[in-house]
Order: sequence, then C-alpha cells, then structure tokens
Amino acid sequence: MWDSFIQHDTVKAILNDQGLAKTGDSIVNLCYSLSKSLVLGIATGEKVRDSVLAKAIRATTLYDQINRRTDHGAAADSYEAVIAYLWMSGKVTIENIVEFLVPLLTINIKTSRKREAEIASEAFKLLLEHLLPSLEFKM
Amino acid sequence: MWDSFIQHDTVKAILNDQGLAKTGDSIVNLCYSLSKSLVLGIATGEKVRDSVLAKAIRATTLYDQINRRTDHGAAADSYEAVIAYLWMSGKVTIENIVEFLVPLLTINIKTSRKREAEIASEAFKLLLEHLLPSLEFKM
Repeated sequence: MWDSFIQHDTVKAILNDQGLAKTGDSIVNLCYSLSKSLVLGIATGEKVRDSVLAKAIRATTLYDQINRRTDHGAAADSYEAVIAYLWMSGKVTIENIVEFLVPLLTINIKTSRKREAEIASEAFKLLLEHLLPSLEFKM
Repeated sequence: MWDSFIQHDTVKAILNDQGLAKTGDSIVNLCYSLSKSLVLGIATGEKVRDSVLAKAIRATTLYDQINRRTDHGAAADSYEAVIAYLWMSGKVTIENIVEFLVPLLTINIKTSRKREAEIASEAFKLLLEHLLPSLEFKM
C-alpha cells in the first residue's frame, strides 16, 4: 500500500525525507497519546515536542547520519521520518510502539512537564534503538 | 487494550468525551495524511481543520445528538471522539479508513485549500455515515 513512499537506498535519504516526516509526526503523536492514556488511565492527546524527539535521536547511533548542529525541528523530523518509514514498511505497528513505550513512561498526573519531557525523550530513544535493526541498511 | 476508555452507555457520552476527542484528533490527522499521500503520490502530512469535521458531523444523523449551535471546535471534537471510540473498539482500522477516504479525495496538487476542505468534509461525512452502524447504540 505504501511501497512508493519507501523506496530509499540509504538511511540518510530516509532521515531527510520531509514528506515521511509529516506522516511520521501524526504517527508519533498518536502513539504517545495512546501510551500516555494507558499510563494515566484516562484518554488524552498530546503533541510530542520537537525537543523531545531531537534529544532522543541525538542519543542514538543515527546521530552521525544527521548533522549534530541540526536544529530541534530538523532532528525531530528525522525521527518522525524513520518511524513513518518503519510503519509503512510493516516493520512496526502502532500497537507495537505503544506496548514498548507504556512501561517506560513512569509518569503520573502530578509529573511536571519538564520531567515528563525527559522521561519521554529517554523512552523515544530506547524505542529508536530497539527499532534500528529493522532499518536493514548498511550504515 | 483500550477497554477502560470505551465504557460508554450512550452515543451522547461518546460525543462529549474530551479525552477520546484528543486521541481521535491524532487518528483523524494520521488517516488524512496517509490518504492524501496516496492520492497525491507524495508522502505528506495534514492537520484536518475543525471546520471540515464540524461540517461533516452536522450533515449526519448524529447532528441531533449534538447541539447544532455547538461551535466548530466542539463539533469536531465529537467527530474525533467517535473515530477514537470505533478504533479502540476494533471496529475500524487506520487502513480501513484510508481505503475508504482515498477514492473520495478527488484532489490534486492544484486543488485550492477551499475546494480541498469541501471535498474532505464530504469524504468525512460519508465515512461517518458508513461507520455509524458499528456504534451499535440505540439512538
């Protein structure tokens, strides 16, 4: 169904795909909304901040595929593009991502936004590390 | 997995569930992003405007379950809550929604934003009408 969007030859091409980033943005937000809903026990919705995803991707081995001086927005786009690529490739489902994130989100309704951002960033870093082998590209 | 979020006794309770609306917002945006990507042949992302969903839900039989004077934001929330409810109930998948929307989105890269909004609104109306029997509530 999504074959035409995932014809990349290199990881770098995925990281720089602005279109994938836009789709990935929706996927990431949905996964975080669902995960946070399960953790808090109330349905909620959340836009994941660029700084959270930027910090996450910079802490993985993908960091040397993107310019470390890249701003938060562009680094977050790269994170989102990878997620969209893996989802469109059928390598991961929304449910897989949520199941991975939930036990890592040690938050409650009293957690400050700053602390939640740190916890979310660490969770998204671990998610990306977990998914990286599925990218199947020579880096 | 989502059982605790979908314990509603009436359609009205779903329509007024702000939490479901937040989750539904992410689902609707993802489905529209994916559908538009398939139609245009390029990966893209799009936030569906409240006015588009408000117009869609007001054109269905759900309209007398919500106050017709409700503003765009609240009417769109009701639309999003229904989608989240159906997705969490396993009555519809992201792929189902995309497959339904794609043939209805008669847009191209030259379509004006205004015209696209009209087309999207009609598509979301038809989607909701198509899904309504799955709500299985006495209205």
